[in-house]
Amino acid sequence: MADHNALPLVILAEKFASLPGIGMKTAQRLAYYVMSMPEKDVAEFAEALTDAKKKVHRCKCCQNLTEKDICTICSADDRNNSIICVVETPKDVTAFERTREYMGVYHVLHGLISPMDRITPDKIRVKELLSRISEGDVKEVIMATNPTVEGDATAMYIAGLIKPLGIKVTRLAFGLPVGGILEYADEVTLFKALENRNTM
Amino acid sequence: MADHNALPLVILAEKFASLPGIGMKTAQRLAYYVMSMPEKDVAEFAEALTDAKKKVHRCKCCQNLTEKDICTICSADDRNNSIICVVETPKDVTAFERTREYMGVYHVLHGLISPMDRITPDKIRVKELLSRISEGDVKEVIMATNPTVEGDATAMYIAGLIKPLGIKVTRLAFGLPVGGILEYADEVTLFKALENRNTM
Repeated sequence: MADHNALPLVILAEKFASLPGIGMKTAQRLAYYVMSMPEKDVAEFAEALTDAKKKVHRCKCCQNLTEKDICTICSADDRNNSIICVVETPKDVTAFERTREYMGVYHVLHGLISPMDRITPDKIRVKELLSRISEGDVKEVIMATNPTVEGDATAMYIAGLIKPLGIKVTRLAFGLPVGGILEYADEVTLFKALENRNTM
Repeated sequence: MADHNALPLVILAEKFASLPGIGMKTAQRLAYYVMSMPEKDVAEFAEALTDAKKKVHRCKCCQNLTEKDICTICSADDRNNSIICVVETPKDVTAFERTREYMGVYHVLHGLISPMDRITPDKIRVKELLSRISEGDVKEVIMATNPTVEGDATAMYIAGLIKPLGIKVTRLAFGLPVGGILEYADEVTLFKALENRNTM
């Protein structure tokens, strides 16, 4: 915003613009919108921001975000603690929970190994996963990282550490997305779908 | 977010989703991003929100948003107070200021007359414009509302009130946008461009 704008508005727009995927134009629009909100709503929004940051931390067990010591999934009675699904981010946990089918527990790595970005295995929560496995009665570890170079490399690395302990390590199936159109599938996906074909 | 998510995160995502143009998916992404921000930055963001709402109000003269009693444009020595550009929103002031050509002052209506949405002339800042005109030495009022049904109707309505006072009332020129391609111009714009053609 130009210097004729009220300074607090300019500052607020800059804060919005610092969020991912929000450009300066949208940020200004949002700042103006905040001006039209009732003061109570704005105060609640501000409180929600600081609350989320202050009260939410990582679960001591699975590293997912929670406001408790141990998250609701890890502390639930009806979850199978012998199956651990290893994911990159808390968002992935949300995605799996939406299926309402998976009844095991999770482990959130908070990143993927990427030597190019200087993210080595000690920068992500691998150590915590290993100590969980050494303590508990784990039967299977599902590597559910994204099918990208980093996701595959991280899955391979962790599998290499866990397999010698005699624990079953599996990887998500890759193939055609349900509802997808064959014509638009990329070659690698199509190859994976062909390679992992099932008898009917 | 599903109920396995930390409550403060769910609340924060809902706050983001209440902003215009931000869906639930983006709101969740932003909430997760806030978790990765340093606590200091989050506190500053929260403060910027409440600050903007508390400190910014409408200029007593032109109704534009400002943190002072009289905004920087109205109080500037180098602005021509005898020309008032009437706009719908503070965003429009920003747009005109970007041209760096207009040296008059503004009047922000904070809305347009729209009987369908029950916005009558008394709901927007027409009264304040009239009292400004009655007090000061105004020579020209430029109606710079959008070229929409509501924008045109508001411009016509206000012009009808001001013209009898013997003040010149003008409307922004409509025509081809600079850099635009004739082939893609809509019929009404093209007709306006033809109608308002200038001698070269």
